[in-house]
Amino acid sequence: MSKIPVGILGATGAVGQRFIQLVSDHPWFQVTDLLASERSAGKRYGDAVNWILDTPLPTDIANLAVKLSEPAQAEAQVLFSALPSGQAREQESAFATAGHYIFSNASPYRMAADVPLVITEVNPDHLGMVRHQRANRGWEGFVVCNANCTTTHLVCALHPLYEAFGIEKVFVATLQASSGAGYPGIPSLDLIDNIVPHDYGEENKVQAEPLKIMGGFEEGQFSDADFKISAHCHRVAVTDGHFEAVSVELSNKASEQDIIEVFKSYRKLPQELNLPSAPDPAVVVVEGMFRPQPRLDRMVGGGMATAVGRIRPCNLFDWRFSLLGHNTIRGAGGGSILNAELMVHEGYIS
Amino acid sequence: MSKIPVGILGATGAVGQRFIQLVSDHPWFQVTDLLASERSAGKRYGDAVNWILDTPLPTDIANLAVKLSEPAQAEAQVLFSALPSGQAREQESAFATAGHYIFSNASPYRMAADVPLVITEVNPDHLGMVRHQRANRGWEGFVVCNANCTTTHLVCALHPLYEAFGIEKVFVATLQASSGAGYPGIPSLDLIDNIVPHDYGEENKVQAEPLKIMGGFEEGQFSDADFKISAHCHRVAVTDGHFEAVSVELSNKASEQDIIEVFKSYRKLPQELNLPSAPDPAVVVVEGMFRPQPRLDRMVGGGMATAVGRIRPCNLFDWRFSLLGHNTIRGAGGGSILNAELMVHEGYIS
Amino acid sequence: MSKIPVGILGATGAVGQRFIQLVSDHPWFQVTDLLASERSAGKRYGDAVNWILDTPLPTDIANLAVKLSEPAQAEAQVLFSALPSGQAREQESAFATAGHYIFSNASPYRMAADVPLVITEVNPDHLGMVRHQRANRGWEGFVVCNANCTTTHLVCALHPLYEAFGIEKVFVATLQASSGAGYPGIPSLDLIDNIVPHDYGEENKVQAEPLKIMGGFEEGQFSDADFKISAHCHRVAVTDGHFEAVSVELSNKASEQDIIEVFKSYRKLPQELNLPSAPDPAVVVVEGMFRPQPRLDRMVGGGMATAVGRIRPCNLFDWRFSLLGHNTIRGAGGGSILNAELMVHEGYIS
Amino acid sequence: MSKIPVGILGATGAVGQRFIQLVSDHPWFQVTDLLASERSAGKRYGDAVNWILDTPLPTDIANLAVKLSEPAQAEAQVLFSALPSGQAREQESAFATAGHYIFSNASPYRMAADVPLVITEVNPDHLGMVRHQRANRGWEGFVVCNANCTTTHLVCALHPLYEAFGIEKVFVATLQASSGAGYPGIPSLDLIDNIVPHDYGEENKVQAEPLKIMGGFEEGQFSDADFKISAHCHRVAVTDGHFEAVSVELSNKASEQDIIEVFKSYRKLPQELNLPSAPDPAVVVVEGMFRPQPRLDRMVGGGMATAVGRIRPCNLFDWRFSLLGHNTIRGAGGGSILNAELMVHEGYIS
Repeated sequence: MSKIPVGILGATGAVGQRFIQLVSDHPWFQVTDLLASERSAGKRYGDAVNWILDTPLPTDIANLAVKLSEPAQAEAQVLFSALPSGQAREQESAFATAGHYIFSNASPYRMAADVPLVITEVNPDHLGMVRHQRANRGWEGFVVCNANCTTTHLVCALHPLYEAFGIEKVFVATLQASSGAGYPGIPSLDLIDNIVPHDYGEENKVQAEPLKIMGGFEEGQFSDADFKISAHCHRVAVTDGHFEAVSVELSNKASEQDIIEVFKSYRKLPQELNLPSAPDPAVVVVEGMFRPQPRLDRMVGGGMATAVGRIRPCNLFDWRFSLLGHNTIRGAGGGSILNAELMVHEGYIS
Repeated sequence: MSKIPVGILGATGAVGQRFIQLVSDHPWFQVTDLLASERSAGKRYGDAVNWILDTPLPTDIANLAVKLSEPAQAEAQVLFSALPSGQAREQESAFATAGHYIFSNASPYRMAADVPLVITEVNPDHLGMVRHQRANRGWEGFVVCNANCTTTHLVCALHPLYEAFGIEKVFVATLQASSGAGYPGIPSLDLIDNIVPHDYGEENKVQAEPLKIMGGFEEGQFSDADFKISAHCHRVAVTDGHFEAVSVELSNKASEQDIIEVFKSYRKLPQELNLPSAPDPAVVVVEGMFRPQPRLDRMVGGGMATAVGRIRPCNLFDWRFSLLGHNTIRGAGGGSILNAELMVHEGYIS
Repeated sequence: MSKIPVGILGATGAVGQRFIQLVSDHPWFQVTDLLASERSAGKRYGDAVNWILDTPLPTDIANLAVKLSEPAQAEAQVLFSALPSGQAREQESAFATAGHYIFSNASPYRMAADVPLVITEVNPDHLGMVRHQRANRGWEGFVVCNANCTTTHLVCALHPLYEAFGIEKVFVATLQASSGAGYPGIPSLDLIDNIVPHDYGEENKVQAEPLKIMGGFEEGQFSDADFKISAHCHRVAVTDGHFEAVSVELSNKASEQDIIEVFKSYRKLPQELNLPSAPDPAVVVVEGMFRPQPRLDRMVGGGMATAVGRIRPCNLFDWRFSLLGHNTIRGAGGGSILNAELMVHEGYIS
Repeated sequence: MSKIPVGILGATGAVGQRFIQLVSDHPWFQVTDLLASERSAGKRYGDAVNWILDTPLPTDIANLAVKLSEPAQAEAQVLFSALPSGQAREQESAFATAGHYIFSNASPYRMAADVPLVITEVNPDHLGMVRHQRANRGWEGFVVCNANCTTTHLVCALHPLYEAFGIEKVFVATLQASSGAGYPGIPSLDLIDNIVPHDYGEENKVQAEPLKIMGGFEEGQFSDADFKISAHCHRVAVTDGHFEAVSVELSNKASEQDIIEVFKSYRKLPQELNLPSAPDPAVVVVEGMFRPQPRLDRMVGGGMATAVGRIRPCNLFDWRFSLLGHNTIRGAGGGSILNAELMVHEGYIS
């Protein structure tokens, strides 16, 4: 089959670059549109971008001309959105109205009542909401969101436990990487010999998004999962890879061995369908009390899996454990690409 | 009055250096003995030490001869112990037997049933245990311990709440500085672009020590405070200053304003006595959701106080807040120096 | 005597904060004017600034109202300029026209033919140029510049050698701190697990400024010192403290002992006059092949001195050595404050 | 053809791990022997090693039993040596005596008069010295060394210029990665918010080794290249990737375009033979005044090439430029593997 043309909204930013890196060699997709603001529009992409990734900018992408970010310019129906939150609501709406399928890393629509917030392993059924969304909003196209980077890996680790044992309460404290704030993002003076507590908005996302994702979808309505999360978020001097320390109270008791077993046997739709970007296994259990670590474990499953370890009893809840995942691969661009792959497979996109 | 001679056990290590820095200009104490292993004994201190602090090694200290670490060598009765845990039990016992008063930063005796583990603001009454300790062990001298660096600042922040409202449950996640592991300590390859989860032993200390410190002392016996702590500990790329994210369930409800008021009005014995190393205030409330931060707040109260901030409701317990304190000043050497100052004031030492 | 009122141009930025920190407790100066752009003007300084230094913002300064940066607003005749280069030329000219004495850390006027670029130990005589400057430009006031941060410490280390032995050639490679780029300055993603070569403009400054500073001043004209510098500049993950690796060819041969002696005996006008901010010694010789280091040596002389060490022969020129100095104390604010102190002493200011 | 069995001396250390990573999937070589000290001998490699690389330890390697490091234990004739300098001289001699072919990353034999110090692109002819070495030393086998990590990339960048234009003088200042010191190597307290000047031994290697490598080999004797190098070496907070700032005086003048052309057209024996580990191109010219950077450029050519950039005139010599290369891939393990590949091709090994 010929490849499906795709475009990138916010193509010159940090997440836009990650989208390009992940999709430039994709078996199903072909990058045809790089969209950005007036500052970059009209330039050769290689001249417009300050490429900050450690793999080379592909030459064919470098030679594409950047287009102005408006519906009339985009040829591809499928668009990956790396827009900053301040611009995402309006632009994504405009593109969706014009018939584009938006797979968005931006936050404005994530918690909207008719927008699917999807992690392919967890709530693929939520994609059915796009039908209602189109009706509600009069959009020819649709918007499907990937979750916040911290939410994503937290849910990837909690979902196996949620399915197997039920969850009552979750404490999570995060040590998040600098790249989560984009580029230029956090000033170096803030992270050399320092840590910076995160703004409360991030904590609110981490407390709310997982409940939507692990919640239900019936008769055109989402319903939150029935447990509570308390989040403490912090930024540390790490380039990529969010670390999360978790205490969890389960509904049904489980042994350490039960938990390890549940993590190891966690295979869901993306794995069964063998989608191009699906990690297999999706959850990787690492051994030893000093793992996971960002530098050593962020690339598990090519950056698409979640590493878990340090499973040990909790004085207050049932279990403590630590998890780690790549925040700009699975936690941003890769999450949306996997969502798009699933919608291709399910016939939403052709 | 003439100054009281004091010595340092483990004088060449990182904590030993901090003891020297803090005590070298002390109004009550005069360093007379620098004790170390055979490798250093006999050398001029300035030649034996690899000085890693950012204030200059005082010349008079540099010119002292290092003595071999055995009771026959130490002239001072008061000794600050910066011994590594592997050597502390045996050596401290030998020195205490020989009549020395040991103020120890080492862990082996911290949880012993007859050894006071003291934070001067919190449990000065526990010092009374030395009488029983001497009887039990047949020691001429005694051992008084300061707490683990993470414990110290956690207790400094919890104690005002414990006194005012009671505490039921505490969840704490830490981002600890490299200096807590001494020198050479953590390899740079482990902390550049990385974080390293702490070993479980540290978590156990943080879960156990606060209960002893905030517990009772009656009829020669300590009794633990009656609440539970769950700790998640991590090491990050910070030189000095431990950051701790806390969720706390109180016995009696309190508003944010109540809590701030309790922190701000916290003045205890060391402040009332105006002990030379006592911070005043002991707890510093910092403003803004991005504070405290290690680089900006670790030197509050000259490194002897604890900064608290980010007081906000918790989804699971009552309140979340963050705290920060200097791990090798108040959290190590400074804690023991303050203990010694109090015992001088109370007549144990003269 | 009553204190001389002074103001800060660009008061909210990183260098502006450093000026405030250094001058807020000054024996001769009293901060009366904090000037900034429209965004901050009218606000209480404590509300307008994102204070990034590790000493607390003094309360009396925090309570000052920020004034709009225009001559009509400034009451103090003496102004320290922390303006960004893009605004400095025009604004400093306007203030000097209006009679203000500008001590500037900005670069635009540094190489101007009638503007003194002064390091008090090296070329205090250049201050005489202000007479010609006023005549040339019709200014009631004047502008005196401090040098680039890297230039400053390089010259502080070279000048003793230049006076004693003459200099023919200098090769210098720098490892510069993040704070030299201000705040927000360098993105953290650029300095975590990375170094960033400096732009060529910095190298050109380091190659040109020292020759003006160490050059002559006769009959109203500056003349460059007669040697050449080749500079390689780089930014590393250090908060404060520029490190410079130097190879120098001398006009007259000197032994290592000669060089050490010359560094140690270097006392000039600021030291003789005992100016409030003058370091004494101005050049500190540190021992051992692993020194100087930024974290350990940047605060020599309260951040106003220059540390030198690692003096060893060079395969190509005569000697190699390393130097280190605080880039935002002596290398920025402190340099201008010392210039102002000298002009007070010499009667230019009263 | 069946694969050639190879062993690793010092298999558990940082460089040993890199050898394993690079050779574990090699088309010509098969790891059969993992040799280490008594502490590890007898254990499963996966249990003996603290694996610090960010790619997983291959399972088949993890399951090999570690052998005691003595000739009687090693089955493979070809051994890659990652021994620490303190043990390398004696052990490598013992293994060579017993008939093994040692490709060593250790320093003791590098400057020996009968030991080839080889960079395959530069001095493949020096391998002929092994005949004399065997005769001189009565060894059945031989020792061939790769160069110091800093030397390696310096020579890779200088050699094209040396061949094309001749070289008279070289200044080099380095910003070296932590991994060059192995593991545990540099303490984190030395590199957080800090840089550490290198010991003078490193500088001496960088001044001496390039002259041997770029020198001649005739009638059984090496002769040094006829120019001088002055080196300033420093360690910075970077995991992998040495950065070097170079000023070079050429024998025959060349334009910037000439230099770029010479770098781009540099193809030598390993590229012509298409050896499995040979980078092609060997020298990668990167554009822009902010490149090369360790994080972005260390993996050029899979870590086997050298990136050069920032070519600009020098005030003292002819040209300044910057180079960057991976210090533990091409600069350690990879250099020796390429040497072994060439000797396989040339029939020394079969």
